[in-house]
Amino acid sequence: MTERPSTGVRSYATPQLEAFIARALGAVGLPPSDAAEVARLMVRADLRGADGHGIFRLPQYVRRIRAGAVNVRPRIGVASETEAMALVDGDNGMGHLVMGFATRLAMDKAARQAVSWVGVRRSNHAGPAALYAMMPLERDMIGLYLAVGNANHLPPWGGIEMLLSTNPIAVAIPAAEEPPIVLDMATTVAAYGKVKTAAQRGEMIPEGWMLDTRGQPLTDPRRADEGFLLPIGGYKGYGLSLVFGLLAGTLNGAANGRDVVDFNKDDVTPTNTGHAIVALDVRRFAPTDAFKRSVDTLIRDIRCSKRLPGVERIRLPGEQSHVTFVERSKDGVPLNPALQAQLHRLAEDLGIAPLSRL
Amino acid sequence: MTERPSTGVRSYATPQLEAFIARALGAVGLPPSDAAEVARLMVRADLRGADGHGIFRLPQYVRRIRAGAVNVRPRIGVASETEAMALVDGDNGMGHLVMGFATRLAMDKAARQAVSWVGVRRSNHAGPAALYAMMPLERDMIGLYLAVGNANHLPPWGGIEMLLSTNPIAVAIPAAEEPPIVLDMATTVAAYGKVKTAAQRGEMIPEGWMLDTRGQPLTDPRRADEGFLLPIGGYKGYGLSLVFGLLAGTLNGAANGRDVVDFNKDDVTPTNTGHAIVALDVRRFAPTDAFKRSVDTLIRDIRCSKRLPGVERIRLPGEQSHVTFVERSKDGVPLNPALQAQLHRLAEDLGIAPLSRL
Repeated sequence: MTERPSTGVRSYATPQLEAFIARALGAVGLPPSDAAEVARLMVRADLRGADGHGIFRLPQYVRRIRAGAVNVRPRIGVASETEAMALVDGDNGMGHLVMGFATRLAMDKAARQAVSWVGVRRSNHAGPAALYAMMPLERDMIGLYLAVGNANHLPPWGGIEMLLSTNPIAVAIPAAEEPPIVLDMATTVAAYGKVKTAAQRGEMIPEGWMLDTRGQPLTDPRRADEGFLLPIGGYKGYGLSLVFGLLAGTLNGAANGRDVVDFNKDDVTPTNTGHAIVALDVRRFAPTDAFKRSVDTLIRDIRCSKRLPGVERIRLPGEQSHVTFVERSKDGVPLNPALQAQLHRLAEDLGIAPLSRL
Repeated sequence: MTERPSTGVRSYATPQLEAFIARALGAVGLPPSDAAEVARLMVRADLRGADGHGIFRLPQYVRRIRAGAVNVRPRIGVASETEAMALVDGDNGMGHLVMGFATRLAMDKAARQAVSWVGVRRSNHAGPAALYAMMPLERDMIGLYLAVGNANHLPPWGGIEMLLSTNPIAVAIPAAEEPPIVLDMATTVAAYGKVKTAAQRGEMIPEGWMLDTRGQPLTDPRRADEGFLLPIGGYKGYGLSLVFGLLAGTLNGAANGRDVVDFNKDDVTPTNTGHAIVALDVRRFAPTDAFKRSVDTLIRDIRCSKRLPGVERIRLPGEQSHVTFVERSKDGVPLNPALQAQLHRLAEDLGIAPLSRL
C-alpha cells in the first residue's frame, strides 16, 4: 500500500481489488465464476487508467442489481448467426459477461472466416470500450468495438434535445515490439465523467466541452444539467454518434435515441444496452509478423517525427494507458479517499470483508 | 442548359457528362465498358454535390493515365479470401473499377454470411467515400467504407510532419420512407479541397482548419503549403485517421504513412491506394422492414426535436446530398467557367467531341 498523506490517496493491488469486487457481486447474487470474471474486467479497466469505468462503478452496479434492473443469472444466448456473424441476446446480464461471451464468439468466428461481426442486445454497461477491442489482440486479431452509451448527453447538431449518447468506438491493432495501438474514444469532445470529476473538484471546464440550451458556452460543471456535451468536429461527431448508435443499438434491437435509459438517474429499468464487436484475423491479409512490423514502423515514424514548439513527446493511441497499466500492475491502483469511504460503506452494507490494502 | 450570366455557371445533364467522361477515358485507353462505369460513378459524385470528386478530377485522371501511373487494362483479382472476407488486388486500375469490383464482392459475401469485409490494395483515387458505402443500400444492406487519402495533409497530434491523410469514413444505413442515412466525412476539420477552393476564390479560411508549423492558426489559404490540416476533436481525429489508415492501408499491403504518394503533385508514381468495404445484411439482425421503420422513427425524432436559437432545421447525415441529388438529376450539374474551360481544352487535347450542353 502506497499512501500519499497529503491527499489520502491509497493504492491497492490487483488481487485485493478483484477479490473485493467478486465478494460484493457474489453477495448480491452473481455465481462465483461470473463475479470473478466481472471483477477481473473491472480491475483491468482500473489498471489501464479508465478510472470512471472500474471499481468506481461498483456501488452503482450493486444498487442496480439490488433494484432488480440487472439479471444475476442470465442465460446469454445467440438469437441469430452465420459462420461470420451473430446476434447475441444478453438476457439483461452484467455487460462484462455479455461482452466477454460476444467477444469470444467473435474471435472463434474470425478464426474460421477471417472476419466476424457480433451484435449484442439486452446487455448492460460493460466498462471501457478498449476492454473488448483489446481481447482479440491475444490471438493476433484486430478488434473493433462500438456501443450505445448509457445516458443521452448529446443533441443532434443544431438541437438541444439530448437524443444521442457519447457512443464510443474502440479499435485495437497489434504491433510487434511496440505496445498495440488502442484507440478508445467517445464521440463527444469530453466524456460526461470528466465533467462530473471537474464538478467534484470544484474546477471549471474549458469552453468547447458543453453548451447551454441558449447556445452559450457552459463552463461551470455544477450547471451541467442545464446543458449538453458537444460532439467532436461539430456535425461530424454528431454523425459518428448517430451511426455508431444505429450499428450498436437499433440494428441489434437494443435501445437507441429516445429509448436510452439514463442509468445514472434510474436504478430500476433494464437498459437494453447494445454493443457490436468486430474481429479481423490479420493472417488472412498478410503474414502476421510482417504486418506487426509494419505497425511498429508507422508507430516509430510518428513518434520520431518533428514536433510543434513546446511538445515533448508525440503519443500513439493507447500509449499512455499502456504506461499506466505497467505502473499500476506493479504499484497498485490509486483510489481517492471519497471512493475508499464509499467502498467501505458498501462492504458494511453487504456484510462482506472490506477492501484489504497492500 | 441553365446559364447564370453573372457567374458563367452552366448546368449539364447526366447523359452528356457521362458520355464526355467516357470519351475522354476511352481516348486514353480504357475499354468502353470500363470507361462507362467510371463515368457513371464520377457523375454520381457530382449529382450528390461532391464537386471535388466528380468530373473536376477528370483532367488529373487523364494526366496520370497518360503518364503511365494508372493501368488502363487492369486484371483486378482476389489475393486471399474466405466466405466472408477478401483481399482484392486492384492491379493499379482506376479506383472506381477496383472499388466497384470490391463492393459487389462484399455484397455477394454478405448475402451468404450476413457480414463481409473486403480489403483493397493497389487501387487508385475512387471519388467520394459515400459512393461505395451506398451501393449495399440497393440490397437492403448497410455499407461501411474506409480509405487512405491520396495525399498526406495531417501530422500526428503534437507534430508537424504530415504523416497521415484525411482518411475518410462513410457509413450508409437504409431507411423506409426517409432517405438513407449517409455519413461521409474526412477525419480533419476541413477537407483539403475546401482550402484549395477558398484560395481560388480569394477567401480566408476560419481559425481551426489549419495551423502553421509554429502552431499558429493559418487563415490565408494561399499559405496552405506552409501548414497542415487539424483533425476533428484534436487527438481523437488523429487517432481515427491513424486506425482507418491501418485498416484500409497497412493491413491490405497498401500505402500508408510515409509511403503515401501525393497524387496532386506527382503524376507518374502508382499510388497503391488502399480501401476497405464492409457490408452487413440487415435481415440477419432483424426483419428488414421493421429495422427500416426504426431508422425512420429515429430520423423523425431528431428532425422534429427542439433547436438552438437561430437554427432553422436539424439535418441528418446525407440529407443535403440527397436534396442536391434530386435537384441535379432534374436540373443538371452546374460547372463553373474555369472548369468548363479546362474540360474544353481537355477535349481539344484528346481530339474528342467537347462536353455538349443541355
